[in-house]
Amino acid sequence: MVNVHVYITLKEGVLDPQGKAVQHSLTALGYEGVEEVKVGKWIKLEVAEGSDLDARIESMCEQLLANPVIENYTYQVEREAQV
Amino acid sequence: MVNVHVYITLKEGVLDPQGKAVQHSLTALGYEGVEEVKVGKWIKLEVAEGSDLDARIESMCEQLLANPVIENYTYQVEREAQV
Repeated sequence: MVNVHVYITLKEGVLDPQGKAVQHSLTALGYEGVEEVKVGKWIKLEVAEGSDLDARIESMCEQLLANPVIENYTYQVEREAQV
Repeated sequence: MVNVHVYITLKEGVLDPQGKAVQHSLTALGYEGVEEVKVGKWIKLEVAEGSDLDARIESMCEQLLANPVIENYTYQVEREAQV
């Protein structure tokens, strides 16, 4: 099993009302100099290892985890060093 | 301005119904070997630089971005190398 971290954000140009709300709240709370806030998702999966791992992860992202029309995704596979 | 990435997850032991739902959906879609799924948040902020940056970020997380009772947060500050 490997840990996979998938990071999903809205594409450039897509309105991010949640991010705007967080930004306004931070300013209202007195935090100055907060220019831009974007809220995305971070999904951690424990997936079986295999030669088709990358293909499987990409397929999961396209089919379920992200909405490819409005969202971008990146992922990282966490591997332990083998001694 | 520096880019700050804040990663928020539910603490160990806190039920994650969204993660469970994603896991079941992936299995239902035919993806085998998906053992555990956790859904968290990834917040990207553009914040003014300053010597109190760490303190400011931690305070923002505690006060607004995360719920310290049930959530853990980590953050990374993205700096460009200065030549």
